[in-house]
Amino acid sequence: MKQYQKEQLLEMVKSSEKDIQADISITHGRRAFLRSSVAMAGSAGMLGATGITAAQTDVLPIPESNKTMGKQLELESYGMPSKYESKVKRRRSDILVNKQQYSDWSMTPIQSTPGIVTPNGLFYERHHNGIPDINPDHHKLVVHGMVAKPLVLTMNDIVKYPTVTKFYFMECSGNGLTDWLTAKSKTVQQTHGLLSCAQWTGVPVSWILDEAGIDPKATWLIAEGADASGHYRSIPIDKMLDDALLVYAMNGEMLRPENGYPLRLFIPGWEGNVSIKWLRRIKAGTEPWHARGETARYTDPMPDGKWRKFSFVMEAKSVITNPSGGMKIQPGFNEIRGYAWSGNGKITGVDVSIDGGKNWQTAELEEPVIDKCLTRFKFNWNWQGGPAQIVSRCVDSTGYVQPTVEDIKKVRAITGFVQHHNGLFPWNVSASGEVTNGIG
Amino acid sequence: MKQYQKEQLLEMVKSSEKDIQADISITHGRRAFLRSSVAMAGSAGMLGATGITAAQTDVLPIPESNKTMGKQLELESYGMPSKYESKVKRRRSDILVNKQQYSDWSMTPIQSTPGIVTPNGLFYERHHNGIPDINPDHHKLVVHGMVAKPLVLTMNDIVKYPTVTKFYFMECSGNGLTDWLTAKSKTVQQTHGLLSCAQWTGVPVSWILDEAGIDPKATWLIAEGADASGHYRSIPIDKMLDDALLVYAMNGEMLRPENGYPLRLFIPGWEGNVSIKWLRRIKAGTEPWHARGETARYTDPMPDGKWRKFSFVMEAKSVITNPSGGMKIQPGFNEIRGYAWSGNGKITGVDVSIDGGKNWQTAELEEPVIDKCLTRFKFNWNWQGGPAQIVSRCVDSTGYVQPTVEDIKKVRAITGFVQHHNGLFPWNVSASGEVTNGIG
Repeated sequence: MKQYQKEQLLEMVKSSEKDIQADISITHGRRAFLRSSVAMAGSAGMLGATGITAAQTDVLPIPESNKTMGKQLELESYGMPSKYESKVKRRRSDILVNKQQYSDWSMTPIQSTPGIVTPNGLFYERHHNGIPDINPDHHKLVVHGMVAKPLVLTMNDIVKYPTVTKFYFMECSGNGLTDWLTAKSKTVQQTHGLLSCAQWTGVPVSWILDEAGIDPKATWLIAEGADASGHYRSIPIDKMLDDALLVYAMNGEMLRPENGYPLRLFIPGWEGNVSIKWLRRIKAGTEPWHARGETARYTDPMPDGKWRKFSFVMEAKSVITNPSGGMKIQPGFNEIRGYAWSGNGKITGVDVSIDGGKNWQTAELEEPVIDKCLTRFKFNWNWQGGPAQIVSRCVDSTGYVQPTVEDIKKVRAITGFVQHHNGLFPWNVSASGEVTNGIG
Repeated sequence: MKQYQKEQLLEMVKSSEKDIQADISITHGRRAFLRSSVAMAGSAGMLGATGITAAQTDVLPIPESNKTMGKQLELESYGMPSKYESKVKRRRSDILVNKQQYSDWSMTPIQSTPGIVTPNGLFYERHHNGIPDINPDHHKLVVHGMVAKPLVLTMNDIVKYPTVTKFYFMECSGNGLTDWLTAKSKTVQQTHGLLSCAQWTGVPVSWILDEAGIDPKATWLIAEGADASGHYRSIPIDKMLDDALLVYAMNGEMLRPENGYPLRLFIPGWEGNVSIKWLRRIKAGTEPWHARGETARYTDPMPDGKWRKFSFVMEAKSVITNPSGGMKIQPGFNEIRGYAWSGNGKITGVDVSIDGGKNWQTAELEEPVIDKCLTRFKFNWNWQGGPAQIVSRCVDSTGYVQPTVEDIKKVRAITGFVQHHNGLFPWNVSASGEVTNGIG
């Protein structure tokens, strides 16, 4: 970077020709499709836009908001969504009745979150005994067990380390657990809303373990939270040294209280409950601790009656978020869109079927496509008005293909509330356009 | 995607070896540096972490939060940051006194926003006559002028189009206008806080113009807002057809009221005031309209006494956000980090100087590096304790290098509050570690 030529100031340099050409060809491709959709739907306007005459545009009424002074922005306020969007909220499950909210969860309205960033105010969360109130000035992380030099780190210590910032999805292992065999949940917020995605900022755990002088014989670490459930999990050291982070910020601000403020572990691509919130302790040892969260909970029943423990990875999965349960569509052009993600790598492709999986067509993946991150997919659909079943299927960079529920039943016992549901998930579209859960 | 081999379910496939190797080599590189920093600083602990004995870790007190039930999460609440983060807020300028807040702005605390996503609650905004209250059910966009078929679009029409989602920075042309020649502002929020970045969702303007049958002779479009200032700008049709978007969502939710709810124009890489908020009208013509916002405002004085109009592009710029004005650092390891961005393309490199620009060293760019988006840079600095002046310099994919203020003075008249300040911006570090504005 040291041998630049003298730059030409003030010149409005265009983006490279290559980029512009790419944009135009995509635009043209979609416009051509849109035109053909319109033709097929026999509609005069493309998507409901109303044509008017030039004379009419000159006499259109000026909106009231042009004539009335607006509100001042409250000084030094932390902004909030419009009052007209108050229906877009996190919600708990409709299916599982809970008599208190100390051990509870809330689900992201993924039908209303365009893009791969989940706003922090809508980020899903699961807590086991309420949300603790932790003053960051008093919070400490202890690193101990099989280390040469046990450490106590304050938040001031931790934020002084070099920063690493990464986009990663987070998914609860129980995401969709009520909907394996029969359609129980009505909306995609209920079936798949224990899923969110953020840009996380923190410090690689490997740096901290290096500083503590981790014993080469250590094979497992325990991570424990400072909440009233004392939730803890055992994590293999290979993963901790690979890409685990001590996280203090998400989406450009410090963690929200319900997402672990002031410090959490983040284990990319693995079930959310191992990313211990309100992290207060990491201890190195030579075997797992067999916590309640890895024996009585977060395990998978197998066909032979045994239960599989330590099934950490959230394998490749996708779901259509629009249209989805509870919506009603109109004949003509409808964009089918949704998310795909894999705890094992990048999404390399998504197919969409409109006939319940008999025939598949390639969906478009939207950039950026990032390792262990939500990837948005889109598919142009000209719905002719008959009954349909829409479903997506993804493949990741390891070659793993999202399985059908039938595939999964061959290798797992699907009984009750089973974790790690990554099967294909269909939505039924009725002749009149109502969209409903298509499982079972 | 149709000819997969039978997949092996339940296998915990690791990320590709290549990815893992890359992670490890980066980790090792930084760890080696950190170790050498520690050695240089002559410190026993790396960054203030306190060493303890193994016996001490067993008797550390259990935090109160482990013994007390946490709070329930308010059902269906839209989440908020921790009360301990209440100081992280948007703020207006300290320098320019304003007696009312109808024509005002608020600035992002970019020293406290790790990552490239600015939370919507902290996103900078500028309004010219208050924030209008617009019910999206009643909002209409009119497309008229030199088009074959004028259109009226409701919000329901607009959200039915195929979606495009893109990360882009947004910067006010007046960002830093008080600090060209003498150090006036104290913090980076004040000097550079009219800068934010989001993932935007909407519809390419080109699709709408295509549907309206834009006249091939049209060369300029006017875009007008539905606010009480009736703010409008003239925009060349080439840019509108290239990458302009009709935007209704940012960072995974509908626009915030102060950022244009329910609909705004978004012009990637150009000064923020052309991305008309509360958009109600687009009209095609053959010349610019010479609005107040392009004659009396948002223009640049030139050395010959003339004023340059239509200087839309925000050219390549960078700034160090940590450490920055108002902070105090300690000798030893300090990560220098900040943002770089360009309205003309991608950032391809950032250099950092710790001696006021005499010598430059290459900073690390953090992925993802995206066209017309904030790019984070990082530089490991072992501060020995003497006075220093830290400054960053970026280059973009067109080869343009961020200029010094001296460079800019050769081609522009720097008088009063001049727009488009993209000069190098230094911070002074005193012998005792206080960081202050180093301009002038």
